[in-house]
Amino acid sequence: MKLVRVGPPGRERPGLELDGGRRVDVSSVVADYTPETLGPELLERLAALDASQLPEFGVGARYGPPISRPGKIICVGLNYAAHAAESGATPPSEPVLFFKATTALTGPNDGIVIPRGSTATDWEVELAVVIGRRATYVDENRAMDHVLGYCLHNDWSERDWQLKRGGQWVKGKSFDTFAPLGPWIATRDEVPDPHALRLWLDRNGRRLQDSNTSDLIFGIPHLVSYISQCMTLEPGDVISTGTPAGVGLGLKPPTYLEAGDVVTLGVDGLGTQRQEARAAS
Amino acid sequence: MKLVRVGPPGRERPGLELDGGRRVDVSSVVADYTPETLGPELLERLAALDASQLPEFGVGARYGPPISRPGKIICVGLNYAAHAAESGATPPSEPVLFFKATTALTGPNDGIVIPRGSTATDWEVELAVVIGRRATYVDENRAMDHVLGYCLHNDWSERDWQLKRGGQWVKGKSFDTFAPLGPWIATRDEVPDPHALRLWLDRNGRRLQDSNTSDLIFGIPHLVSYISQCMTLEPGDVISTGTPAGVGLGLKPPTYLEAGDVVTLGVDGLGTQRQEARAAS
Repeated sequence: MKLVRVGPPGRERPGLELDGGRRVDVSSVVADYTPETLGPELLERLAALDASQLPEFGVGARYGPPISRPGKIICVGLNYAAHAAESGATPPSEPVLFFKATTALTGPNDGIVIPRGSTATDWEVELAVVIGRRATYVDENRAMDHVLGYCLHNDWSERDWQLKRGGQWVKGKSFDTFAPLGPWIATRDEVPDPHALRLWLDRNGRRLQDSNTSDLIFGIPHLVSYISQCMTLEPGDVISTGTPAGVGLGLKPPTYLEAGDVVTLGVDGLGTQRQEARAAS
Repeated sequence: MKLVRVGPPGRERPGLELDGGRRVDVSSVVADYTPETLGPELLERLAALDASQLPEFGVGARYGPPISRPGKIICVGLNYAAHAAESGATPPSEPVLFFKATTALTGPNDGIVIPRGSTATDWEVELAVVIGRRATYVDENRAMDHVLGYCLHNDWSERDWQLKRGGQWVKGKSFDTFAPLGPWIATRDEVPDPHALRLWLDRNGRRLQDSNTSDLIFGIPHLVSYISQCMTLEPGDVISTGTPAGVGLGLKPPTYLEAGDVVTLGVDGLGTQRQEARAAS
């Protein structure tokens, strides 16, 4: 299944994306996709529905982020060797983690707001994992039992705030609109091998990132297990697995987002996103 | 007012702490203290109550953390000069920020779980600020309008995961039970000067931290304004303002928490906490 949330910001309703692009409203079954409702039991109930009996969302209605108020967005840094190299870093010996504020969440096509004064806003196409079952001290060989599904994420990053303003990366990762998620969560059964997905990103039609999750340094079972050693993962938590080479920071010379730019991106089976850039008011 | 949540874990009810230690249940007025309910309007409604008409919580009933499911816990690093020095760091030129997973939240007296294999679990008494009004790009002279109140926080830190496991500090800050908060939120009017509060911490009866928020490098208006430049603050968000000198990392030689230890701590007007240490199962 593909789980979507559709409607105006803050008033999205849960739904399913069907083959052919039709989207049906399941708010008669579940009020919303939240940390409290997401999990295997909900997926069973959704799978039992007769989609032909459900109301359809209008064509063109807005996709929201496919999770409402997740508890955390955990990002993995430098998880592709070529991206570590372009960032001037050596590939890490264990996963590098940082958090993104959940207030940065936005729909996949809502647009990106360049922070006030920013001249270093940068793109990062990523495969994100959504947790479906609570996980604490989980072994790697059981880790996938805790995964609900996958979605597309653009881990927008303001490089000056991330790298030059002192301390930790979180400052450059947490601006509003810096976490476009979706359009959907593809449940685990929809993605036979999450380590064989092409991911790409274009800026103004020019391909800048083009890689495959087969190049991840740390794969999903390892990440889920590793993170669960130092914090409890809950349903709805998002783990963004890192970006491949081709970010603005790695270009010669570094080149960043400008107002009016259009960035499009995708991961096999997880749909596409489109963000038009505007300056903060 | 002093806002408390009382009851077993996950089933706390909102209340008020009255003079003399009586605690009354306000769940007839508000279901819980959450990002959705906290704010000036709620405080007005609570202030209008006749406490003598409200049911009392039992003596000895557990304090939970005074906020349910806050959106984020933002911590400030190295915000006391003497602590920066004991950590081997120079005082920062602008605030150092990191996040703590909200799953680390626990009640003020629930105890601290030493992570599996940890030999470097460390204490950090801190003054925490609770946001009451949404804040984005807020000027310093308006920043206090966005503060709901203050509470006591022990920013437990696993130094090996924080400093030796690669990357960012978040790994060492986010273990379950690493964010004891409370016993109460003192509303802003209860704390005439938040920059003149003594804060202290004892391990097994020995005073290790003893300082005053007058020594903060970056004060609360600056922190709220600064953070609001790179992310949106929402009601219920917690900003923990940093710890003074006296952490285990700074002792000669470094000395850390052991199972069976009892740590007590307090901040003027914000009550006290007591955590007994046990090993993770």
